[in-house]
Amino acid sequence: MTFALEAAVRERLDRLISEELRVCEGEIQQELEHSPVPLIREIGAHVALAGGKRLRPILLLLGSRLAGGGARRAARLGCVVELLHTATLIHDDLVDQAPLRRGRPSAWVRWGADAALLVGDHLYARCMALLVADGDLAVMNALASAMVLMTEAEVFQLERKRTGELSEADYLRIIRQKTATFMSACCRIGGLTGHLGPAGVDALSAYGEGLGVAFQIIDDALDFAADQARLGKAVGSDLREGKRTLPLIVTLERATDDERERVLSTLGRPDAVTDATLAEIQRLVKVYDGVGYAVRRASTYVAEAVARLASLPAGEIREALTLIADYVIHRDR
Amino acid sequence: MTFALEAAVRERLDRLISEELRVCEGEIQQELEHSPVPLIREIGAHVALAGGKRLRPILLLLGSRLAGGGARRAARLGCVVELLHTATLIHDDLVDQAPLRRGRPSAWVRWGADAALLVGDHLYARCMALLVADGDLAVMNALASAMVLMTEAEVFQLERKRTGELSEADYLRIIRQKTATFMSACCRIGGLTGHLGPAGVDALSAYGEGLGVAFQIIDDALDFAADQARLGKAVGSDLREGKRTLPLIVTLERATDDERERVLSTLGRPDAVTDATLAEIQRLVKVYDGVGYAVRRASTYVAEAVARLASLPAGEIREALTLIADYVIHRDR
Repeated sequence: MTFALEAAVRERLDRLISEELRVCEGEIQQELEHSPVPLIREIGAHVALAGGKRLRPILLLLGSRLAGGGARRAARLGCVVELLHTATLIHDDLVDQAPLRRGRPSAWVRWGADAALLVGDHLYARCMALLVADGDLAVMNALASAMVLMTEAEVFQLERKRTGELSEADYLRIIRQKTATFMSACCRIGGLTGHLGPAGVDALSAYGEGLGVAFQIIDDALDFAADQARLGKAVGSDLREGKRTLPLIVTLERATDDERERVLSTLGRPDAVTDATLAEIQRLVKVYDGVGYAVRRASTYVAEAVARLASLPAGEIREALTLIADYVIHRDR
Repeated sequence: MTFALEAAVRERLDRLISEELRVCEGEIQQELEHSPVPLIREIGAHVALAGGKRLRPILLLLGSRLAGGGARRAARLGCVVELLHTATLIHDDLVDQAPLRRGRPSAWVRWGADAALLVGDHLYARCMALLVADGDLAVMNALASAMVLMTEAEVFQLERKRTGELSEADYLRIIRQKTATFMSACCRIGGLTGHLGPAGVDALSAYGEGLGVAFQIIDDALDFAADQARLGKAVGSDLREGKRTLPLIVTLERATDDERERVLSTLGRPDAVTDATLAEIQRLVKVYDGVGYAVRRASTYVAEAVARLASLPAGEIREALTLIADYVIHRDR
């Protein structure tokens, strides 16, 4: 069923924005090949041209089409948000010491932490320069505000990890700031390229925000439930990195004192997370329906997101946004 | 003599822009205290409020005064460039694994590499948001272009370090892109806040560029020649990090094959740099007048920088810029 939904989304996007996506892809490639410094080209291409979902450019392109914006400009801005996303992935993997990304060694593993840090910084700078060249203060404001919240959330998440405490509210704050704000900004920027008016742009942004929260909840839940080969990284890798996400948070709330203490004593010490303790944590998450709870929470956010689309012009583009919302809940990677 | 020059610069700046500098300092402090996340406040304050020279805001403020720009806005933009500088210092120290900054443990030593990376990213994002709030595309363009070149040079420098080759031309390219471009942008932004006209703004930028090249040459030379207590970090620390700078580059050119091979065999392996090998390298740099050569090169850049001021309005502000140029050559920290 999941595969069918993914195919349906693909088919719809192919029909609606294949040309824009192709142009956007060309822009991304050109931006990366453009650099005179080989390491920048290599690392950039390794991460950005490794078969990402392109969800952020897609949201931007659909938002722009819905708003009647110009295709060429939307494709260029789609390139900007994907490069920005690439920079955050490079830095995130380094901070999390994640060994794999999309089934391949992370940039810091292959080229070193110093190179990963510096190329990430360079991509940020390039995005800023591209935004300045675009020259629209409202667009810049949307992305700059998102970046402030995203990076703030990264630091907040690190603080929580160090204290070893993370409530459901903390978790939701983090994923809202880290993932949802960025997806919301992509939708907003798409809307800003056209003639939707402030209420329409706000509706698109709200859709992106709800979608983003749901996307991240499911992303985190897949760490407990996915098929490793399709996921492109080891199932349980969040746990190994000591990262607590919604399925585990609710499991810890529902578990007995004894179970909770056993789990907490392993987390936070990555070396203590053996295959056996991992299996035990995953068993508890199953017993207490942690993944089911997370999926239900995500579904609520998606329902709210889709509801915000009602005020926007009906048609194939709006339907595509609804399809994407369904896909976000039902995807398996 | 050096101390006297520093006092003369200080006295001049106190007389001309003390109020602007005070406002700028207040903005920096407020920006750092503003964050809801303690780690951001702590790391930001540790690095930005640790007695830096504030050379970049000073250049911006003087440029603005020379151009007849508004003091309040210049102070705000001065805050932006100092925060940006702070972000680059935090990331640079992490990449170089430098243990000390301004006589205190570097951010990554005290708070961890992950925290240093993320807080640096957050400061970049905050700078971008502040620039958007300022709303001037020409100012944004100056800083975004500088950031692209600065971060590109960081990656290029890393590549050269890995190959173990660094010519004088490579070295000059790196410091031009890394340091001079940023100082040039500060001068340019100052000029842009006023009514100088394009030729005047270009002259200010050119001054900043020459000044920046000289500044970095001297900065690097101080690693061989400074008084450790005044410098705030260990003399020879660039060598320990395997960093080649102008005094060493020229020494290697002038040395015998035998001497060159001895030096090259220790560099690139930081564990091989003992106190004895360090002393041997420093002896060779003295024998071949590496520091003298570097200072003479820097003096040429400063002379060219000062010459570019001739087309700008004469007066106390222009004199202050000349004094700063002298200080850059004669400083001892």
